[in-house]
Amino acid sequence: MSNFGFMNLRVVNPYAIAFREARSAVGASSVLKKAQEYQELREAIVDCALVVGTTTLRNRQRQQPLYRLEEGVGRIRRKLSSERVALLFGSEKVGLSNEDLSRCQWLMHIPTREMHPSMNLGQAVAVCLYEMIRSGKLPRRTAETKSASTGQLERVTDLLHEALQASGYLGVAPSATSVSKIRRLVRRLNVDAADSELLLGMLRQILWKIRSQE
Amino acid sequence: MSNFGFMNLRVVNPYAIAFREARSAVGASSVLKKAQEYQELREAIVDCALVVGTTTLRNRQRQQPLYRLEEGVGRIRRKLSSERVALLFGSEKVGLSNEDLSRCQWLMHIPTREMHPSMNLGQAVAVCLYEMIRSGKLPRRTAETKSASTGQLERVTDLLHEALQASGYLGVAPSATSVSKIRRLVRRLNVDAADSELLLGMLRQILWKIRSQE
Repeated sequence: MSNFGFMNLRVVNPYAIAFREARSAVGASSVLKKAQEYQELREAIVDCALVVGTTTLRNRQRQQPLYRLEEGVGRIRRKLSSERVALLFGSEKVGLSNEDLSRCQWLMHIPTREMHPSMNLGQAVAVCLYEMIRSGKLPRRTAETKSASTGQLERVTDLLHEALQASGYLGVAPSATSVSKIRRLVRRLNVDAADSELLLGMLRQILWKIRSQE
Repeated sequence: MSNFGFMNLRVVNPYAIAFREARSAVGASSVLKKAQEYQELREAIVDCALVVGTTTLRNRQRQQPLYRLEEGVGRIRRKLSSERVALLFGSEKVGLSNEDLSRCQWLMHIPTREMHPSMNLGQAVAVCLYEMIRSGKLPRRTAETKSASTGQLERVTDLLHEALQASGYLGVAPSATSVSKIRRLVRRLNVDAADSELLLGMLRQILWKIRSQE
């Protein structure tokens, strides 16, 4: 990260002892020392407008667009002048879970060969960040953020979910799959910050109406 | 290496115990199992027509062309259809020595930031090999090799060196620097396989003449 100028590391639910030791070690990089720790992915990406997941090509049902690294990075670079972007890496053994992936707007993959698609985590990060700066320095954030943050999208998702339950569209105990489906729908809609407030107002009113009739 | 389809690893003077253990470990990659071991860099590159060194931007007097990774890889790809190419990485701590570098036709560097130029070895290799396949599969070697191999260049270097000593151009105990200078000169000349035989013939004759007059 530091080699390519990326200084903001957020770590979700790390193995506590190893993480603490790594941070306090002599010679630990400033990236590691300043790394922020979260219990849940949701909290770690709450202020990010674009969340991009990394994955291999195989072994996963994909319900989101998947781009080759080079194309994905092009899309990220165009966003960077106005938005905070999160790039998600899973654990080395299992990668990102399906729930993690449902929090991403889209996914990208490194073009590894079919016979050996899964990469060492540190090497995958290095390759992605190299691609990020290959065509020049990162654009600085200058414009005001216009897209909804992940926090706003999460509130829309929660209220929509509640409204769908209250209306009987979803059962009282909806499956994890249906929650993921709703989350992905809201991510696909490309809601901006103002629209997310509008949608929240609509959903609150709908919920109030349904409940007042019960 | 395996992720990006590079299967020929040559290891020079590795830490023997660690290397033997790594190779015989359960789950060791086929790249590692098939890795060839050499005592000297010279032996490891003897059949390669193009030898490219990797280095950081700082801390070294450079007497060879130095290209940014992307440009260097373009040059390598154009060679690959006719030549065997060696890509050299030094140890993580000190990189390639000046003597190692003198065996390279040219050098390339990964565009890391000035404040933190030196990379983890595995990550540097991953980034370089990713760049090698980014624009598509590697060209297969189809044409006959025309460039001189490193072995042929080494013989030209040795004979030229001998001739320069015999002629008095170099002292009887020439410094490592002057040997390196000769080596780099021969690498710059872009000698092809046929010319290297021609040069060897000339040098042998010159040496014979000088010695017969003594």
